[in-house]
Amino acid sequence: MPEGEKLRIALAQINPTVGDLDGNERLIADWIGRARDEGADLVVFPELCLPGYPAEDLYLKHHFTEANLAAVRRLAAVAPELAVLVGFAEPVPNAAPRRPDAPHRRGAYNSLALLRGGEIEQVHRKNRLPNYGVFDEVRYFEHGTEPTVAAVSGVQIGLTICEDLWEPGPPGSLEVEAGAQLLVNPSGSPYLRGKGRERERMFRARARELGAPIVFCNLVGGQDELVFDGHSLVIDAEGEIVARARQFDEDLLIWELGGTARVEKPLGDLDEVYAALVTGIRDYVRKNGFRHVLVGLSGGIDSALVAVLAADAVGADRLTCVVMPSPHSSEETQGDARTIARKLGAELIELPIEPAMRAYEEILAGAGGLEGVAAENVQARIRGNLLMAISNTRGSLVLATGNKSETSVGYSTLYGDMAGGLSPIKDVPKQLVYALASHRNAAASDPPIPASVIERAPSAELRPDQRDQDSLPPYDLLDRVLAGYVERDRSRDELVAEGLPEEVVDTVLAMVNRAEYKRRQSAPGIRITTKAFGRDRRLPITNRYES
Amino acid sequence: MPEGEKLRIALAQINPTVGDLDGNERLIADWIGRARDEGADLVVFPELCLPGYPAEDLYLKHHFTEANLAAVRRLAAVAPELAVLVGFAEPVPNAAPRRPDAPHRRGAYNSLALLRGGEIEQVHRKNRLPNYGVFDEVRYFEHGTEPTVAAVSGVQIGLTICEDLWEPGPPGSLEVEAGAQLLVNPSGSPYLRGKGRERERMFRARARELGAPIVFCNLVGGQDELVFDGHSLVIDAEGEIVARARQFDEDLLIWELGGTARVEKPLGDLDEVYAALVTGIRDYVRKNGFRHVLVGLSGGIDSALVAVLAADAVGADRLTCVVMPSPHSSEETQGDARTIARKLGAELIELPIEPAMRAYEEILAGAGGLEGVAAENVQARIRGNLLMAISNTRGSLVLATGNKSETSVGYSTLYGDMAGGLSPIKDVPKQLVYALASHRNAAASDPPIPASVIERAPSAELRPDQRDQDSLPPYDLLDRVLAGYVERDRSRDELVAEGLPEEVVDTVLAMVNRAEYKRRQSAPGIRITTKAFGRDRRLPITNRYES
Repeated sequence: MPEGEKLRIALAQINPTVGDLDGNERLIADWIGRARDEGADLVVFPELCLPGYPAEDLYLKHHFTEANLAAVRRLAAVAPELAVLVGFAEPVPNAAPRRPDAPHRRGAYNSLALLRGGEIEQVHRKNRLPNYGVFDEVRYFEHGTEPTVAAVSGVQIGLTICEDLWEPGPPGSLEVEAGAQLLVNPSGSPYLRGKGRERERMFRARARELGAPIVFCNLVGGQDELVFDGHSLVIDAEGEIVARARQFDEDLLIWELGGTARVEKPLGDLDEVYAALVTGIRDYVRKNGFRHVLVGLSGGIDSALVAVLAADAVGADRLTCVVMPSPHSSEETQGDARTIARKLGAELIELPIEPAMRAYEEILAGAGGLEGVAAENVQARIRGNLLMAISNTRGSLVLATGNKSETSVGYSTLYGDMAGGLSPIKDVPKQLVYALASHRNAAASDPPIPASVIERAPSAELRPDQRDQDSLPPYDLLDRVLAGYVERDRSRDELVAEGLPEEVVDTVLAMVNRAEYKRRQSAPGIRITTKAFGRDRRLPITNRYES
Repeated sequence: MPEGEKLRIALAQINPTVGDLDGNERLIADWIGRARDEGADLVVFPELCLPGYPAEDLYLKHHFTEANLAAVRRLAAVAPELAVLVGFAEPVPNAAPRRPDAPHRRGAYNSLALLRGGEIEQVHRKNRLPNYGVFDEVRYFEHGTEPTVAAVSGVQIGLTICEDLWEPGPPGSLEVEAGAQLLVNPSGSPYLRGKGRERERMFRARARELGAPIVFCNLVGGQDELVFDGHSLVIDAEGEIVARARQFDEDLLIWELGGTARVEKPLGDLDEVYAALVTGIRDYVRKNGFRHVLVGLSGGIDSALVAVLAADAVGADRLTCVVMPSPHSSEETQGDARTIARKLGAELIELPIEPAMRAYEEILAGAGGLEGVAAENVQARIRGNLLMAISNTRGSLVLATGNKSETSVGYSTLYGDMAGGLSPIKDVPKQLVYALASHRNAAASDPPIPASVIERAPSAELRPDQRDQDSLPPYDLLDRVLAGYVERDRSRDELVAEGLPEEVVDTVLAMVNRAEYKRRQSAPGIRITTKAFGRDRRLPITNRYES
């Protein structure tokens, strides 16, 4: 770099929508303009931001990848004087069709286009394709095999994409050997609790090893089960953080090579989880075209937290709380439910379900009657039906209210309390539900969740004097077993060796395994842990293994 | 091979259960004994038959792969004088743990153990791992890189696993170069319509190219969405079929090198599809421990076919038909429903749903009432609730009755007619539903499905005089659009260019895309086409792409 000249980089941390090629093209064009207005020489966009990520089998449609390539070509004309790095799905030329049972082919590379002078000047193809956890990139993409170095304003820049830089070695090491003075790393790195700190540790180590600064520009926003947290970074060659963008929000971060820029303070642990859930709800609602959400409020902690999250995500004016008392509901819980709706300022609908309970009893009288678990589940399903009926009438999205602990052990009713289009706290264990509720209350001048909701022993209120603890181990113990079994893949014997009670371990594992068929039909949740049900933890329903 | 000596091979086409290590070990030991009784020198078992396939994330659990290795070692002692090839998940020694968000690792090879003399004498590791369509093997397995040749009774045998032999080249070509006189190919090759013929064509070509006979031993039986069709084969070096096992059933096929053995006649097209559906239902019921199934009979063709399939799969004595008339149900459909149950000899329960309809109207009167689609869906959901209540009381499995055409366009009610643990005809387009029903009738002396069910215009009977064709294009046209869009991934423009009416194409594509959230919560179906919803076709819910 000539003495006195500066390379000015804009990190465009944007929130595109999967499949929305026109909308994403407009969004990127708009942010190129913003970066130009800020005097940037180079604008870096996140991984696959044009097609959206993860777009799953869309990447296999040749007309989709061709259309996204055409959009990249048009974007090259937006600001020919700037260098722009845009992530796209690059069609593989002349890809051979595969066998008849696989009519699609891996039709694309996960690529980064360097736009300059009105054209696609250079392309980097992702070398390292993650295919574990929530990632399926080998299903969609051919591996790139080459390092890529590009010169911008006289500075040699090594191009990498996300996983390319998560381990030592190529392509980053080869790019530095080839003269790269700086590495850029556009990413689609999804959130999980504490992921930001882990990413910073990793990039700091990598920058020191490579002896070069790293520019990490991440996607932001929700996409079905995933939330991208943004949290874009610049790390200098000594491994120090010299720029940090906002979390869970779009941001344009400007940094000059050799300098220090805006360094946002990261959110604390519970704030971060809460923001992830709000982001996931907000984007699911917005990107799927909903105007309004519905939550069935029981007076319990789970639905209370979901209602508060929903109000924070979309506004209380777009939230309707539905209270559906039965003869087993207590005055206390129903009063608390009403209080929550009132404090939030949301619409409240009350629908006593007893007439439907009596109708089902009447209908089933000649067919074995309605007792025990069947009678309990019918109540939950009546509530599910009522929420869905209002949803059908108004076009609202129903939010299911199950937490991860009950989703794990199947302590929930399929088509009942599991009904809904999105299940916001599906990946939040019960203990963390309490922590988030208390934390949210503590931050408010007028706490939205009554103390009694937090203090009362949890109950499904589907029969007289029912308590969760009649059917389940205490939640602190349950959550410890689940963290080991579900999130860390520990075996039964390992859990017992860790000191967890043998009987509890056996009971919980059997419940988790039996509930797989329910989870398969559950609404998507928002992933916040190292292993969420859904894209992340994939087990067969037909499965006799018990450890 | 010494003059006059014969290599006698037993193809053990078995039906293991995923995760049932003890049961599968017993099954394999039993079949080793049967093969020994038949005088076999070599017994070939299918791919991954010990852990079961696909066992998904079970393969990532080190205690699971260690336990399956211990079982292989025990199996080596069953008949030390024989050579036995058993598929198992071979733990990767000292596999390094991955990053914290991927605490699992690819822990195994997809391997074949040659058992002889009481020990694991040799191992072949699958070279080519399919990772498209329904296959996710790169998620689970490390690639093997070597060809493997083993001598049995003086004959050099090349070991391959499924995909290893689907394309020309290594490892098969290298094994022949190394002297292999015969190739064995244990497989877990799932069924789709016509797959058997395609497999035969492929193996005949491969045998001719390699100039060596091929022994293909396939899994049989249902595993969630997949059905393995058996149909094991021996092809001689000239590409002729010299042995063929039964389809959709366990079979022990004995063949001597150089000779011709039993050659079963393949099923015709509709018989084959029908057998696949019956197998899928039977194994889902049995392997998940159900004793009894429930089908809601509407008098329409879909539920009629599902009831007949269920009776054929598990026996009419384990089938209960539930007829749930509403004021919109016609005498004709309800009469036909009763006729079907009677002809099958199944239990019949009648539950008029009007009391529940009235109760929901009463409850919702103050909250916008119950009209239009909401009122229609409530009826479907009442029926879903009643089936689930009986299921909860009796422990029965509910079979959902939606076909592929309505699953595609979302012409179904979530938690209503979509309720159930298995959705047997979810991958059967409406036109094929009719063909299968007529075919099954034609094969019976007393056809179980009344002609009126086949001839009547389809209706959901959720409002007066409703017909499917009021909301959907004619089924022959709809199914053509769906075959192009869903199964062949054709774009909107390509479908129009093929001569399909533009307006219909646009309507259908929009319906398919909007219904993704429903499909995500649907019960697993049984895959019979080149692209089934579920494991096979994977698209985001949040997705603005419309072509």
